[in-house]
Amino acid sequence: MSKPLVGIIMGSQSDLRIMKEAAEVLDELAVSYELTVISAHRTPLRMVEYATEARNRGIQVIVAGAGGAAHLPGMVASLTSLPVIGVPVKSSNSVDGWDSILSILQMPAGVPVATVALDGARNAGILAAQIIGATDKALGERLDSFKKSLQTKVEAAAKSIEANGWKSVL
Amino acid sequence: MSKPLVGIIMGSQSDLRIMKEAAEVLDELAVSYELTVISAHRTPLRMVEYATEARNRGIQVIVAGAGGAAHLPGMVASLTSLPVIGVPVKSSNSVDGWDSILSILQMPAGVPVATVALDGARNAGILAAQIIGATDKALGERLDSFKKSLQTKVEAAAKSIEANGWKSVL
Amino acid sequence: MSKPLVGIIMGSQSDLRIMKEAAEVLDELAVSYELTVISAHRTPLRMVEYATEARNRGIQVIVAGAGGAAHLPGMVASLTSLPVIGVPVKSSNSVDGWDSILSILQMPAGVPVATVALDGARNAGILAAQIIGATDKALGERLDSFKKSLQTKVEAAAKSIEANGWKSVL
Amino acid sequence: MSKPLVGIIMGSQSDLRIMKEAAEVLDELAVSYELTVISAHRTPLRMVEYATEARNRGIQVIVAGAGGAAHLPGMVASLTSLPVIGVPVKSSNSVDGWDSILSILQMPAGVPVATVALDGARNAGILAAQIIGATDKALGERLDSFKKSLQTKVEAAAKSIEANGWKSVL
Amino acid sequence: MSKPLVGIIMGSQSDLRIMKEAAEVLDELAVSYELTVISAHRTPLRMVEYATEARNRGIQVIVAGAGGAAHLPGMVASLTSLPVIGVPVKSSNSVDGWDSILSILQMPAGVPVATVALDGARNAGILAAQIIGATDKALGERLDSFKKSLQTKVEAAAKSIEANGWKSVL
Amino acid sequence: MSKPLVGIIMGSQSDLRIMKEAAEVLDELAVSYELTVISAHRTPLRMVEYATEARNRGIQVIVAGAGGAAHLPGMVASLTSLPVIGVPVKSSNSVDGWDSILSILQMPAGVPVATVALDGARNAGILAAQIIGATDKALGERLDSFKKSLQTKVEAAAKSIEANGWKSVL
Amino acid sequence: MSKPLVGIIMGSQSDLRIMKEAAEVLDELAVSYELTVISAHRTPLRMVEYATEARNRGIQVIVAGAGGAAHLPGMVASLTSLPVIGVPVKSSNSVDGWDSILSILQMPAGVPVATVALDGARNAGILAAQIIGATDKALGERLDSFKKSLQTKVEAAAKSIEANGWKSVL
Amino acid sequence: MSKPLVGIIMGSQSDLRIMKEAAEVLDELAVSYELTVISAHRTPLRMVEYATEARNRGIQVIVAGAGGAAHLPGMVASLTSLPVIGVPVKSSNSVDGWDSILSILQMPAGVPVATVALDGARNAGILAAQIIGATDKALGERLDSFKKSLQTKVEAAAKSIEANGWKSVL
Repeated sequence: MSKPLVGIIMGSQSDLRIMKEAAEVLDELAVSYELTVISAHRTPLRMVEYATEARNRGIQVIVAGAGGAAHLPGMVASLTSLPVIGVPVKSSNSVDGWDSILSILQMPAGVPVATVALDGARNAGILAAQIIGATDKALGERLDSFKKSLQTKVEAAAKSIEANGWKSVL
Repeated sequence: MSKPLVGIIMGSQSDLRIMKEAAEVLDELAVSYELTVISAHRTPLRMVEYATEARNRGIQVIVAGAGGAAHLPGMVASLTSLPVIGVPVKSSNSVDGWDSILSILQMPAGVPVATVALDGARNAGILAAQIIGATDKALGERLDSFKKSLQTKVEAAAKSIEANGWKSVL
Repeated sequence: MSKPLVGIIMGSQSDLRIMKEAAEVLDELAVSYELTVISAHRTPLRMVEYATEARNRGIQVIVAGAGGAAHLPGMVASLTSLPVIGVPVKSSNSVDGWDSILSILQMPAGVPVATVALDGARNAGILAAQIIGATDKALGERLDSFKKSLQTKVEAAAKSIEANGWKSVL
Repeated sequence: MSKPLVGIIMGSQSDLRIMKEAAEVLDELAVSYELTVISAHRTPLRMVEYATEARNRGIQVIVAGAGGAAHLPGMVASLTSLPVIGVPVKSSNSVDGWDSILSILQMPAGVPVATVALDGARNAGILAAQIIGATDKALGERLDSFKKSLQTKVEAAAKSIEANGWKSVL
Repeated sequence: MSKPLVGIIMGSQSDLRIMKEAAEVLDELAVSYELTVISAHRTPLRMVEYATEARNRGIQVIVAGAGGAAHLPGMVASLTSLPVIGVPVKSSNSVDGWDSILSILQMPAGVPVATVALDGARNAGILAAQIIGATDKALGERLDSFKKSLQTKVEAAAKSIEANGWKSVL
Repeated sequence: MSKPLVGIIMGSQSDLRIMKEAAEVLDELAVSYELTVISAHRTPLRMVEYATEARNRGIQVIVAGAGGAAHLPGMVASLTSLPVIGVPVKSSNSVDGWDSILSILQMPAGVPVATVALDGARNAGILAAQIIGATDKALGERLDSFKKSLQTKVEAAAKSIEANGWKSVL
Repeated sequence: MSKPLVGIIMGSQSDLRIMKEAAEVLDELAVSYELTVISAHRTPLRMVEYATEARNRGIQVIVAGAGGAAHLPGMVASLTSLPVIGVPVKSSNSVDGWDSILSILQMPAGVPVATVALDGARNAGILAAQIIGATDKALGERLDSFKKSLQTKVEAAAKSIEANGWKSVL
Repeated sequence: MSKPLVGIIMGSQSDLRIMKEAAEVLDELAVSYELTVISAHRTPLRMVEYATEARNRGIQVIVAGAGGAAHLPGMVASLTSLPVIGVPVKSSNSVDGWDSILSILQMPAGVPVATVALDGARNAGILAAQIIGATDKALGERLDSFKKSLQTKVEAAAKSIEANGWKSVL
């Protein structure tokens, strides 16, 4: 694989169940990435090292997923000026996901995190590609094709229902 | 001003009270932008036109703010493959801001919106700059200086409290 | 089937599991309808076309269901002056349904959506019939009979419990 | 005024502060209405009488507003087969409006209430007009003009900002 | 059974799964009761009749359970000056039980409902007994014994754990 | 004043602002009461003494108000078999009142608290009277008159609006 | 076992499923403890006795777990000046855990409870050890080793993923 | 002042408005402390340094306050084995305080934060003293006196109300 442009990190290996969707969609879009586990709370110094060195290593976007009192995305954002995408993960002891959403979203002025939906790792991957694709023309075109494919799929479903009646697709 | 790279849009002129902070921080960071009012619900066709033409006009990031059942960021994201940053605005009849947060954040797979904190327009501006700065070295350096200035301000406050006691700063 | 008076649309084929209940109750009430899939986020232009042409095609009420950041009902309401009924669907990654409820309910002044309960597609179908029945005397009478049948069913349950004791019906 | 087609009712005179907006917009749209106070909890028998007689008196839509444990819209809906629009009012002891929203929205299968946003009386009036306008061609055209006027207002605001800069409108 | 002092009613036979616990504990406490199904929304006139006649029939307390937009307890309270105990039932389409809790609890000044915990039918039965036992000395003593038995059970569990270690009771 | 039948207690003198409404309505209904301050957290042993002796002193109902993590109503209920009415008070550091509502409402099986609305002290007083009035015929009649007066007031408001138009009462 | 320094108590034996994790981690950290069941609502006088005697018996920290309207931690804190750690337990009828969280967390000024996460008994045990370890040097070192072991585990997971790819660990 | 045993830190000088109450109560209880500003997001490396050196400098407890996506208490807890008390501060753009509560409370297993009530800095100070007082006999006695003084104040208020009637204290 070519030099990674996106760094996908997560607070625990158990988040991989969700976070792998970011990797999968980056594969679909032919965007290079790296993926590892970094815990804000269990490996804080490793997190500092990763975040402060990411830009120099050529990373352009960081995707960070975490659950509960999710501090990883915000702390990484405090340590780099790269755009950081945060994925709130609904973990087992979560208060219905509100904890991870609010811990990632409600960052103070000066330190943004680009937050996506609860368990929205696939969208985090797409957003990472969109960020790179803002100036990368070829990737921009791949993203337009990707968007077109979403449309085509819905239209096919609609066509089938309209032709055969909704009972045909249950 | 040079050709705008960031498009700042909002659902109502009343959102300008919040959304101007995106413009102000982009001025601080010397990133060119345009700003206008586009309502998903009152001018839907204008929204379609704006979103579908933005990339061709040279826009690299769109910042969209809206309150209540906030559909503008998500609908713009459905119409372009540019990164879209959503700002949930706490409007007057809002259910404590939960409506705008959830309407912007919880996008379906395929169509991400980079959501920032409630009324977090300043962070939206910074995030837009970070997205452009991911590949623009000079802007990246301005962002690092900006981050450094945040640190300096906190350190000065700390120094004053430590030297003179906390009662001195009340 | 005669020319449809009600248009039932939904953001994804996966919503059919819920939305079919609107179709079923319209069948019971002998109100004609059409049903298809239209995604605000994946087929935005198809949505514009559907909504702007609905009145001219003879549609009198639109029932729109969607989950998460549910934009379909509100966007359709922005594009037509027909009454639009919104059904918040509790989808898999939903934040307990709050996202779809608030995204549909909290529309800004000028663009109402008639919102029903979470997963309340059956009620959406009844409400669509009530809207048409406001001026259609025969349908009004069918709705009165329908209401009477709800009453009869409860009374039968009560009678059985009162006669035989509550342990008899467990 | 001609014979009323819309019945606007509210649980307390103190709700008039909000509910008058329904009356005002019906005046703008030239739809006849009546307005009175009916409390589900303080005048339950009056409520039964009003709801059961409304259709025979020529009412086509009922708009009911209430706060807290708001039972008026749902109880009226249980007593008539006319469409009932519910307006959750944020009253003084409300739990942030959640009580009135959920008490109105979450009706059981069989008895729908068309719920609008918190304090959304203006939208309730518009929705009542849309319901009548579904089959009244002249009113449908007035609603289309009304919708156009919303658009024009936003476009004027946008034009002013684009021409003179956003600082000109603060 | 002797003439019933407590009237247990519920909005739907499906609530019996929860509401039977009120009946069971009244049996334990030797308090006479009746139990039936009355729907505020499906049999509103039956509800009016039940509530207005309850005091004359010798009922001293009414226990009313309902789910979703739960109007039964509050509407019954509006129609009688007897104490009414409300049981919020977590029904299938409930928004996590918040809807039934708030619809029952947040009654306006003048019309109280004595609300118990979500699905708290057992406590509703005990509370009904306590209300009668406030002036019925023999029942008061049965309630004191009942309270003592709760204590004894906890003390036995504690004794076993303390004697044999917590691993012995897993 | 005759021997008190209702004991009104509250966690802090600052709750008197709300809790006095219970006293006022008991005065209106000619039900005797006592009122004092008892803090579950600051005077726990005083609370134990009050609760365990209340029945022997002739108290028939206890009304207990508290804010935040409101333990007073539930703890008193654990110490007496009298009916206990809990009033959730919205105190200054409250999380929007949710803390006091849930701390009072969600009692475990065996120990009910009759919970009223947030800041609903007036309803707590009425409920206390209803509990005594369940077996006190004269009080039952006063409660019926009280209920009638609520109705009369609403009917007068309605009559005025219907006669003079809603603009006359703004 | 040596004289217990930590007292682990819970409102019901059914909470042991969660609360045993506090005991387990104290075993790992070689901190002595006792464990029993004490219900604030079913054995209030036993609770008073336990709390008032704990310090004299040599207990240094109390860990108290409870669900629903969880009064045990706060009431114990009102009766002792020892530090009390509260564990909100998500019980079966809980309103998604919010009730136990808020009942434990929102204590009034003067009577703190050290609250940990929902079902966070393991963290309660660690916190109890940290409190004792604040002045116990040997325990402080065991806690540092424990912290190191958390780090090592994450680093091993990371190393494996980085070496073999994320698909290797699914 | 003698060598500080408690370290009070906060994310922003604007939090001092709340956090000073921790300092004030430690002064009342004659416990030595230091106080400064450390931002997790603006001075992350300063935070690492403070937290890793605290134990060696003789600090026994850390009190950390922060608002919004409050990461300071949890990150400090990840970097030291001292007990860390977290104070959720309700800042201006907060979502009603839920963000800071959940960001501090919902820490993952292994890294506890002792969370107190929203804006509960006074309780954080008392808890810090209780932690030190768990093994410091003289401080334990001061805490018992402090607790006694809370009781005395409530009893005086009660006595005044009981003697002069509740109207005397309004």
